[in-house]
Amino acid sequence: MHVSLRCLVKPLLHGYFRSSCSWRVRIAFALKGIDYDQVPVNLIKDGGQQLTDQYKELNPMQQVPAVTIDGVTLSQSLAIIQYIEETRPGPALLPADPQKRAKVRMICDLIASGIQPLQNLYVLQKIGEDKVSWAQHFIIRGFVALESLLKETAGKYCVGDEISMADICLAPQVYNAERFKVDVDQFPTIKRLNQTLLALEAFSTSHPSCQPDTPADLRA
Amino acid sequence: MHVSLRCLVKPLLHGYFRSSCSWRVRIAFALKGIDYDQVPVNLIKDGGQQLTDQYKELNPMQQVPAVTIDGVTLSQSLAIIQYIEETRPGPALLPADPQKRAKVRMICDLIASGIQPLQNLYVLQKIGEDKVSWAQHFIIRGFVALESLLKETAGKYCVGDEISMADICLAPQVYNAERFKVDVDQFPTIKRLNQTLLALEAFSTSHPSCQPDTPADLRA
Repeated sequence: MHVSLRCLVKPLLHGYFRSSCSWRVRIAFALKGIDYDQVPVNLIKDGGQQLTDQYKELNPMQQVPAVTIDGVTLSQSLAIIQYIEETRPGPALLPADPQKRAKVRMICDLIASGIQPLQNLYVLQKIGEDKVSWAQHFIIRGFVALESLLKETAGKYCVGDEISMADICLAPQVYNAERFKVDVDQFPTIKRLNQTLLALEAFSTSHPSCQPDTPADLRA
Repeated sequence: MHVSLRCLVKPLLHGYFRSSCSWRVRIAFALKGIDYDQVPVNLIKDGGQQLTDQYKELNPMQQVPAVTIDGVTLSQSLAIIQYIEETRPGPALLPADPQKRAKVRMICDLIASGIQPLQNLYVLQKIGEDKVSWAQHFIIRGFVALESLLKETAGKYCVGDEISMADICLAPQVYNAERFKVDVDQFPTIKRLNQTLLALEAFSTSHPSCQPDTPADLRA
């Protein structure tokens, strides 16, 4: 009898409670109903645990997340999520219609290439003391464009009425915006979608405020 | 008789000869054998033609590329390329095997989220006089990780012996690295793959040195 390894070995998420890219992966696992284990990688402690030689073996970019799954270790959150989508049953994270899929990916990539990298820890460390205004500048710039796109694509969720990878990217980016004191009230569609998403169990159980490595003073 | 619009209306690429993300889309069209028209959007002239209200309608991020295809306008190069992949026949730009697909996407996202956004025009404009050393820093940081990944995944191309979206991302990023005087000899796998790719017709005909908007002094 062939027993798939998938049934025996849970995926292992190397992440950090507050990393928006780690949260994306946690949401995807939660939406798919996939049980997984977590190994915390503290980006601040010991000068950054992602910088160790041991972690570099898992992700040469020395960033979180990395996921060990089906005998391989993958990095880059959207690549991980699409691998989960293509190999696991459960609710689809991409629509069936090619134009809707393209809209989902546009929104994902606007966030994942156009906003998040510019307010990432290693970039802000390089910027130094101006880091808050730098992060605000690029988040606001991106949210202006995102609000305009979402006004055309959104229904109940980012693209129509079905949840998708776009929603998985949106809520963690809004969380980052709030950390950097961006006034999200300026962006009513983003704000409304985020509120809808945070009310879902897959988003609340995976939230940075309640992970195994969330410090006591930041717990919900 | 139903005649598909796809047969009648060529895709329209709004791009810039030297934009690495525009070049990605040109390579994808060339690999698929898709005929398309180009509208140049000069990122420098007139203070940046991507900043006009007219262009903002096409891409609210005010970046190139944007592609009008099948009655919609899409932005974000990887979303555009995956739409082309999912709606057009021709050579596959993603492998069939899910783990290989994940490796292709890891490489794409390492470049598209981990390197390119940090040396993008609008970021360098914000950095000011230190822009060359800033760009070099993030390109080298990314290439160290990329070289390490590619050593494990590469065959003739970035992932095995079949061309993919990873190759579409690689060559334009090496072109950017060379513009910023990064010594690519430090990265033998990247260098070897890039040389292989530049010898292909789909990469040479789409190269920044021979586009309709390439200035005379930069033409090959």
